[in-house]
Amino acid sequence: MRKRIRTLSKPVKFLSAAAVGGGEEGRGNFGKSFDFLCPDDRFGEKTFERAEGEMARLSLGFALKKGKIPPEDVGCLFTGDLQNQCAATSLGLLSFGIPTVGLYGACSTCTEALICASLWLCESPENSVAAAVTCSHNSAAERQFRTPLEYGAQRAPTAQWTATAAGAFLLGSDGGEGMPEIREIMIGKVVDGCSPDASNMGAAMAPAAADSIVTYLRESGFEPSKFDAIVTGDLGKVGSALAEELCFNEGYDISGNHFDCGCMLYDFSKQDVHAGASGCGCSASVLACHFLPELQKGKYREILFLSTGALMSPTSVMQKQNIAGIAPVIRICGGEK
Amino acid sequence: MRKRIRTLSKPVKFLSAAAVGGGEEGRGNFGKSFDFLCPDDRFGEKTFERAEGEMARLSLGFALKKGKIPPEDVGCLFTGDLQNQCAATSLGLLSFGIPTVGLYGACSTCTEALICASLWLCESPENSVAAAVTCSHNSAAERQFRTPLEYGAQRAPTAQWTATAAGAFLLGSDGGEGMPEIREIMIGKVVDGCSPDASNMGAAMAPAAADSIVTYLRESGFEPSKFDAIVTGDLGKVGSALAEELCFNEGYDISGNHFDCGCMLYDFSKQDVHAGASGCGCSASVLACHFLPELQKGKYREILFLSTGALMSPTSVMQKQNIAGIAPVIRICGGEK
Repeated sequence: MRKRIRTLSKPVKFLSAAAVGGGEEGRGNFGKSFDFLCPDDRFGEKTFERAEGEMARLSLGFALKKGKIPPEDVGCLFTGDLQNQCAATSLGLLSFGIPTVGLYGACSTCTEALICASLWLCESPENSVAAAVTCSHNSAAERQFRTPLEYGAQRAPTAQWTATAAGAFLLGSDGGEGMPEIREIMIGKVVDGCSPDASNMGAAMAPAAADSIVTYLRESGFEPSKFDAIVTGDLGKVGSALAEELCFNEGYDISGNHFDCGCMLYDFSKQDVHAGASGCGCSASVLACHFLPELQKGKYREILFLSTGALMSPTSVMQKQNIAGIAPVIRICGGEK
Repeated sequence: MRKRIRTLSKPVKFLSAAAVGGGEEGRGNFGKSFDFLCPDDRFGEKTFERAEGEMARLSLGFALKKGKIPPEDVGCLFTGDLQNQCAATSLGLLSFGIPTVGLYGACSTCTEALICASLWLCESPENSVAAAVTCSHNSAAERQFRTPLEYGAQRAPTAQWTATAAGAFLLGSDGGEGMPEIREIMIGKVVDGCSPDASNMGAAMAPAAADSIVTYLRESGFEPSKFDAIVTGDLGKVGSALAEELCFNEGYDISGNHFDCGCMLYDFSKQDVHAGASGCGCSASVLACHFLPELQKGKYREILFLSTGALMSPTSVMQKQNIAGIAPVIRICGGEK
């Protein structure tokens, strides 16, 4: 049997983190924790696509400032977005001049980037720094994957709201006293979501999320209660219920400590986001705004963090291909006391 | 100064390699070296997009067979394609059930995948195996990035012909007696190509290729003649001439041993491919069909291999954004005698 979990040869520390968001994100549950909010979602740019790149740039800028790290000290950048072909992050982050690895794991790209950055750091000399940046923009994603907002298409109740948000993380295998750290990684498996419905990505991603959670728990021998939180990226209400059921069927009851960033980012009582949040920026910003600070404060001791991605393209959806899901996993532990 | 070149803690061996191609590729210079050719470019599928996924599946299947490695022994798959959002490889390779990292570096994805697979192997136990698979399909790429073939749009003289090809590589840090190995990696930097012209990607990628070559040579202290070949991915005729000139201006004359896969895949005397080949499958198939066998035979002792990518999306092109380039580098040495 293939061993899936890798314990890193050196734990990788979060040196700093930052998040930026749009208007809807400002009105959500973590409005006060974002480093920057732009109420009109345009970030001073002429197009939504450029705005997405600008969000990436701003978030990395804030992370560098908070970590007191100059861009030239960052050895490598792992990044991706929701625009087809990483156009936002390629152009948005160009000015930093940091060597770059472009990633695509749909909404799972945040964890994918943290995993790849960790692998790179373990092969790097002491005091190396890596960056992981992911972003998504509601208006850019809607017109790419579904219909332009101007068409006014009615959204299905199972649809999720792509977050206009970016999260940036600086990681190092040294330093970062008292900061949370990544100790284990598990690369995700592509799992057929058995559905071609681009308006129900929660359902398409739930099998992949459950596969990753069950595989991790089975291989590690841990019970779900080992973790203060088992955090999924953006299953939303529909996908979360399905993933919990799938895990339960495999003998793991995660309902007591399962959190989903897609169910946390917005305030359901005030915001009409249907099944919840999604997008590369969703899990990234909730990690930066909520989970990392809570781990740092000691409220959480350790969490299992898995962003979830729905792998599709506008063409594959039109061709009625099933949407596959993927859910890479990292185990994050609180800083040593 | 940021050190760019990483010497791997354990050299990574090519355990096997395979390539599949379409009709045009069969008529090209390496027609006899492909593991499988499909003259009608459809690979038994109803759509070109599905055909691209099927090519990925076939190429990995051949690599596994040639390496006598069952899919369940492959710990991780690093993969990407030219369809927006990795739709081809996500769906095409799903049946193998191998944990997957989706990458996007446009036509540079082959080297990007080999780099990430090398990093993963260095953090993996003995006898681990990783796979790197990349593919592109002319008809799928044309209708995504430019216009559907049915429109019959006239192509510019600077335009390149996206290869209908896939390449798969199995890598391991152990075994592979006498096989070529990756000793060093250098992650690429995103460089503004200063041109928004999607019909001249060679020009858009040349600055990135030159940046990577000059940076590598300067940091390593090597002269270009150190290598039997400095291989770029798919600059084509236009980009190759520009990259050589840019390197020359920085004090490095690479014209004596520079090879470009985009200028090698097709036979210019018989095939009207304008400036040459391009696509994720171009450098992957030329590496699998030509350079690895030549390294194995001892014809080449060591090569510097850098696939080149043009980072753009259909939307960014319509919005007249400049196309950025990227060129990650690996140093491949022949097997020990």
